Amino acid sequence: MTVMTSKRSPAEGAVRVVLLGTGQMGTAAARILCTKQGLDLVGVVARRPDRAGRDAGEVLGLPAPLGVAVTSDLATTLAATRPDVVLQTTCSRVAEAEAELVACIEAGTNVVSIAEELAYPWAGSPDAASRLDQLARTHDVTVLGTGVNPGFVLDLLVIALTGVCAHVESITATRVNDLSPYGPTVLSTQGVGLTRDAFVAGVADGTVVGHFGFPESVAMIASALGWDIDRVEQTREPIVATIRRETPFVVVEPGNVAGCRHTAVAYAGGRPVITLVHPQQVCPEAEGIATGDTIEIAGEPPVRLSGSPEIPGGTATAALAVNMIARILAAPSGLVSMADLPVPAAIEGDVRRLLRGREVVHA
Amino acid sequence: MTVMTSKRSPAEGAVRVVLLGTGQMGTAAARILCTKQGLDLVGVVARRPDRAGRDAGEVLGLPAPLGVAVTSDLATTLAATRPDVVLQTTCSRVAEAEAELVACIEAGTNVVSIAEELAYPWAGSPDAASRLDQLARTHDVTVLGTGVNPGFVLDLLVIALTGVCAHVESITATRVNDLSPYGPTVLSTQGVGLTRDAFVAGVADGTVVGHFGFPESVAMIASALGWDIDRVEQTREPIVATIRRETPFVVVEPGNVAGCRHTAVAYAGGRPVITLVHPQQVCPEAEGIATGDTIEIAGEPPVRLSGSPEIPGGTATAALAVNMIARILAAPSGLVSMADLPVPAAIEGDVRRLLRGREVVHA
Repeated sequence: MTVMTSKRSPAEGAVRVVLLGTGQMGTAAARILCTKQGLDLVGVVARRPDRAGRDAGEVLGLPAPLGVAVTSDLATTLAATRPDVVLQTTCSRVAEAEAELVACIEAGTNVVSIAEELAYPWAGSPDAASRLDQLARTHDVTVLGTGVNPGFVLDLLVIALTGVCAHVESITATRVNDLSPYGPTVLSTQGVGLTRDAFVAGVADGTVVGHFGFPESVAMIASALGWDIDRVEQTREPIVATIRRETPFVVVEPGNVAGCRHTAVAYAGGRPVITLVHPQQVCPEAEGIATGDTIEIAGEPPVRLSGSPEIPGGTATAALAVNMIARILAAPSGLVSMADLPVPAAIEGDVRRLLRGREVVHA
Repeated sequence: MTVMTSKRSPAEGAVRVVLLGTGQMGTAAARILCTKQGLDLVGVVARRPDRAGRDAGEVLGLPAPLGVAVTSDLATTLAATRPDVVLQTTCSRVAEAEAELVACIEAGTNVVSIAEELAYPWAGSPDAASRLDQLARTHDVTVLGTGVNPGFVLDLLVIALTGVCAHVESITATRVNDLSPYGPTVLSTQGVGLTRDAFVAGVADGTVVGHFGFPESVAMIASALGWDIDRVEQTREPIVATIRRETPFVVVEPGNVAGCRHTAVAYAGGRPVITLVHPQQVCPEAEGIATGDTIEIAGEPPVRLSGSPEIPGGTATAALAVNMIARILAAPSGLVSMADLPVPAAIEGDVRRLLRGREVVHA
């Protein structure tokens, strides 16, 4: 087989995509998808039954009606639309994603998911990962988890940069972002607006979770480089506001918590080899804190790359989900990670041309 | 097949590598290779016949003798050593590389080459690329061109960063580097030390070539995103020293040329979509010029990532060549580019573990 050979014949029509989930991320992905030549949104499945029956364009806030009615039944929609790819935007955890994934795989459909744990499901759910991998191979489809983080900034990009190194001593990657655009669900998982005591209690009882994806990013990096990780230590510390910070969804009084500074340190041979730092807060600029992404590799040669502001999480995750359609259709079957596939790329031409094999694409 | 399935059985011994070329880059690659578990340098072929017969460790300046004699005969060495991979470090152009590549392919050997044109040979040598691709498929081996640039900073990394974009309007990537470590051959191709008039004449008669790899980088990016490039305009301008700049190999008097500012602008639909800027000079810091790599994507979202100093070209190219051994042994057969394979990663564990299939690697 060739690298770029597609599971689809180039003579076929547009790539048929079903969107699973009509929340903020599903909506963002659908808007991007509808701008791409060669991608057709042929079905939309909502978990909220009250959305069923309405035009998908209306539900998703697209510029025009789509002529496709939202359903609340995945299996029926898969059978009726026979999609090439499902975009799963419904959940974060493998346990919650698995039933939908199984339905898609058994219908012979590839899946790109933004479920954070699916970015590297071997880290937290090895049994489910094994099941999904076997099932996907049996049905000759590919299942991929992607997203800005986990899936790109603190793992794939880190791995790629180590490629220029003769030796890597250790890695530190930091992502400072702004939670101001996010709603109550995200803010509560970060402890935003709590008192310090309530934050500490929330970390203890698991209601303040911080970032979702460090075990996945650590395992993806370690697996790519060949490090055996002994243990991963995670810490969640309150980012305390010294002035009032306010968003449409929360007011943080001085002395209360504006966010969560979540850190993971992974050890190999007793030595810290991967440090991931991800302070998430509302209105960081209000206290002069610049957002941004920074990757530092201590090694031969040392490598440091950074950008400010941070790559915005919402748009980037939705874009990655859409852009990876071009990769998943050319991928071998099974459960794969971003580190198993060629690098993502923005889709600027007709997607079908990117699937026609190296000879044509390179012409 | 699985993504990480290797052409080799995991039960086999170390990966057998033959180094082709004993110049500066071959030496650097060999030094890195010898630090890696699971990679064995089983043969060294020099183009310079006077090196034949000497111990490879001595010729390459390794810490200890290697117990392998340098030869000057590729075919005989391939037959005697049966390597898994040849590292080609002998040349820059496809035309010069092809005979050696054919010998390797016909011996059933995979090749990682640092020949600049081989980073994307479809750009400048489509007929040779087609021949090599067919031959490699026939013999079920993989041929890859890699290196820091072309091959990584101004193309692969750019492509990867566009992956987070819903839309890309245009790309500007800049690499400001320091030529001070380089010898007379490199310096003369950049016009270092010339008068301004001699530089202009050198550009006109082709002796001042500037950077080697813009057509390859442009084509790799455009192919990955799906842009049809109308034309690529390249300009080579002298970087004129205002103070004396001196290296072990050249003295640049004030008013003379310290380097070449080489730029490529690629147009799609009449619009400039890719601008690559690569000013190369000796002693930039002498005039307060910071070296570094910067990638800027105008799009949704805009993305900007930069690092200073630049990723050092020599070490990075040698490291990429060695690190990509782990990828090429798991790749489908044919002629491939960095954009066709999973991202590179530093090899920190035993290479053979990275080749044993996803189930084991991810465990």
